[in-house]
Amino acid sequence: MAKKNKVLRPKARKPRGFPDRSGAELIAERLMLERIGKVYESYGFAPLSTPAFEYTDALGKFLPDVDRPNAGVFSLQDDDEQWMSLRYDLTAPLARYVAENMDALPRPYRRYAVGTVWRNEKPGPGRFREFTQIDADACFAPPPHADAEIIMMFIDALSAAGVDDKDVEIRLSSRKVMTGLLEIIGLDPEDKGRSGTVLRAMDKYDRLGPDGVALLLGEGRKDESGDYTEGAKLEPGQIDSVLRFMEGGDMAEALSANRIGAEGTEELAQIISTLTELGYGERVKLDPSVIRGLDYYTGPVFEAELTFDVENEKGQTVQFGSVGSGGRYDGLIARFKGQDVPSVGCSVGVSRLLTALKSKSALPEPVSPVVVLALESDQMPRYHRMAKALRAEGIAAEVYLGGAGMKAQMRYADKRGAPIVVICGEDERANDQVTIKDLRAGKAASENIESREEWTEERPGQETVAADQLVPWVKDRLM
Amino acid sequence: MAKKNKVLRPKARKPRGFPDRSGAELIAERLMLERIGKVYESYGFAPLSTPAFEYTDALGKFLPDVDRPNAGVFSLQDDDEQWMSLRYDLTAPLARYVAENMDALPRPYRRYAVGTVWRNEKPGPGRFREFTQIDADACFAPPPHADAEIIMMFIDALSAAGVDDKDVEIRLSSRKVMTGLLEIIGLDPEDKGRSGTVLRAMDKYDRLGPDGVALLLGEGRKDESGDYTEGAKLEPGQIDSVLRFMEGGDMAEALSANRIGAEGTEELAQIISTLTELGYGERVKLDPSVIRGLDYYTGPVFEAELTFDVENEKGQTVQFGSVGSGGRYDGLIARFKGQDVPSVGCSVGVSRLLTALKSKSALPEPVSPVVVLALESDQMPRYHRMAKALRAEGIAAEVYLGGAGMKAQMRYADKRGAPIVVICGEDERANDQVTIKDLRAGKAASENIESREEWTEERPGQETVAADQLVPWVKDRLM
Repeated sequence: MAKKNKVLRPKARKPRGFPDRSGAELIAERLMLERIGKVYESYGFAPLSTPAFEYTDALGKFLPDVDRPNAGVFSLQDDDEQWMSLRYDLTAPLARYVAENMDALPRPYRRYAVGTVWRNEKPGPGRFREFTQIDADACFAPPPHADAEIIMMFIDALSAAGVDDKDVEIRLSSRKVMTGLLEIIGLDPEDKGRSGTVLRAMDKYDRLGPDGVALLLGEGRKDESGDYTEGAKLEPGQIDSVLRFMEGGDMAEALSANRIGAEGTEELAQIISTLTELGYGERVKLDPSVIRGLDYYTGPVFEAELTFDVENEKGQTVQFGSVGSGGRYDGLIARFKGQDVPSVGCSVGVSRLLTALKSKSALPEPVSPVVVLALESDQMPRYHRMAKALRAEGIAAEVYLGGAGMKAQMRYADKRGAPIVVICGEDERANDQVTIKDLRAGKAASENIESREEWTEERPGQETVAADQLVPWVKDRLM
Repeated sequence: MAKKNKVLRPKARKPRGFPDRSGAELIAERLMLERIGKVYESYGFAPLSTPAFEYTDALGKFLPDVDRPNAGVFSLQDDDEQWMSLRYDLTAPLARYVAENMDALPRPYRRYAVGTVWRNEKPGPGRFREFTQIDADACFAPPPHADAEIIMMFIDALSAAGVDDKDVEIRLSSRKVMTGLLEIIGLDPEDKGRSGTVLRAMDKYDRLGPDGVALLLGEGRKDESGDYTEGAKLEPGQIDSVLRFMEGGDMAEALSANRIGAEGTEELAQIISTLTELGYGERVKLDPSVIRGLDYYTGPVFEAELTFDVENEKGQTVQFGSVGSGGRYDGLIARFKGQDVPSVGCSVGVSRLLTALKSKSALPEPVSPVVVLALESDQMPRYHRMAKALRAEGIAAEVYLGGAGMKAQMRYADKRGAPIVVICGEDERANDQVTIKDLRAGKAASENIESREEWTEERPGQETVAADQLVPWVKDRLM
């Protein structure tokens, strides 16, 4: 209760980057998550839910944007002074869970998870600080077969969500191959600074092409906005090697002479072979520019791209792009226990995928309820009974609330998108009748005035019927 | 990657009061939320999702435990120094949403929401700091009809979740009646300190009885553990009035002479009358000890109690108790805009309700997948194909991963609860066959050794069939 003498009202606003969501989008998302979950379950993945908070040290620092001091997470101190953070993905909490329950879990342990994750990043258009992921992971699951399985399942999940198979392309690469490449050109793959700069440069190959990447591998690059990015300071020979690798050139021989590079190449070949045998071959393509930002990957990594064209913010026609990704992280659980647990997972970017589906075809509008008008204030139980009778037949129905006049109630029904309005005023009540108005039919009629007579004869938009005919009439009309 | 020379490993643990959840419980919860959501939708409530974070001032301080300095919420400062808090319920964010979108919303505005909420409280057994709520609220919806509707819907939701109608009791009271009572005994209802102490004392009537409440209304009370609670310091005459009210005695006349008390009494009578006409009367009962801790309620308040007996931690037989609650909060949105928006809502305590369902009957176990053994490492695509063929018929199936021997793989299938194991070793493969083992039939057989021969003839636990008979055989067996 606000004090009368001095009212300090909070402003009704929310923090940037945190969306409110409702209507068709939310309903489509729920349906999508349900369908993807069913695919995961059909592969033997069981649901697991972990909390939003983890101890900060247990979560680890694996986010790509290493330049920010708070590493992109939301953190606070618990009562006992320990730092907790909101999860930034569903994989780091899984690693904690597996390490904590190591001996009790079946091997392989296949789980899936749906949940909100938070990133403390600069929000922007379409770039939120809270979003939903739906992940599946197999732990105690060595390459290459677990990886092939995850990729098949990922493709099935996208298909179940409503993506055309022909629009999906899985771009596949391997951290082992990257490591081999780094070793071959004489870098230390464990040197996150310099090797990280090289990988980030390679990641931009699609966007910047060979020349831009060459600058980032060398001295550095100034972008159109004038921002300067420091380069990896490689020698020209090293830069050549990296670019030849990106172009799929003659690196195969060099990689085969490098232990880890050869291992990565062999794993990728086996994955492709299995996927081809199972009928997924056409949708998978080796692509050395797939790096994946998260720092915990150790083997095969992949991204799911949608290849159809959309217009970007600048009005240019571009491919839709990534709707999810995944990869192998054999060392992530070892952070806790010292013992590697071979693991691989995939993650669908739920809002990206929703955007993709929306750009191909409109999301289905949620079903609006039948509205029962509330015309006589002492007859509310009668209106509630009508609504209840409709619901009993599976028809969503609501009674108008608020005590406005009939016109305002009709406007409400219209705003609400109600297909049908039920009217029981004094006259109808006296004759044990109801008037039923089909708003959709009425709308159709008003759009085709020339055929009005014909239409009125066959499908009247409004009818007064015996009260006990309400439910059959509405049912018939909604079918 | 950990450095080799000095390894500091985080411990795999999670903050207290934040549960991991999996298996039957999680699946039962999802089903329950789906069913309750469908009931809400059938009443015309549309889904809304608001973010986990709100600005702290927008969220307001309405939690019952007024003694704690941080008021029971998790808060942190955003980059721009503004304080944000994780939502402690779904009503306060709704109030912000309605105030922010006031002119765009239909009136009445009915929405429902499912979401995680967080309370920064001392965790204990069954007392978590993160839990799920599923709420429905009607805004721009004056009493008493919106309240009657919410209560009907609440009962329908519990019934859809699997609660027996006869086990549900809605205990109903009104903040207006409380306010009337406080005025009658000469207190200022706006004086949160003293009036709050009186209400908290009344809230304990069920547990402490009249004598305990009398102490809390008077000087104070020492509980069994020796903890002393300061009382409201009422005069004996005032205490008598409160106790007579609690016992449903002769306060009706006094209340009728008090404007707000009479208004509250009349609203309750109308709600009960509508509920009775609609067939819900038996499940609703007036109960002056229903206070509801949250500070924002202004009118009718209610709790849903389950009346069946359970054993508590001390081994005593008690009624199961509350699984949800709700009430009217006409002033909550006015915090932002100054203009009252009559609103009423209900909230199901999801984990309490799950516990209730579990205590009446076991939750259904999740369906476990068929396990295809991986016996020859170069035949993985074959195993994947078998699993894929089973899935195409709607049967969950997984391929063993990890390269263990046959015995270990059978142990895994057992631990996983697999109904059926598919075996294709070298011999089977040479003859284009598969061996299929029905683990459930095998288990049943070993439990009834005397009837084994008979059983073996009619339903063998293991059979070798032509490879193309795999799917029909498994389908037949799982029906």
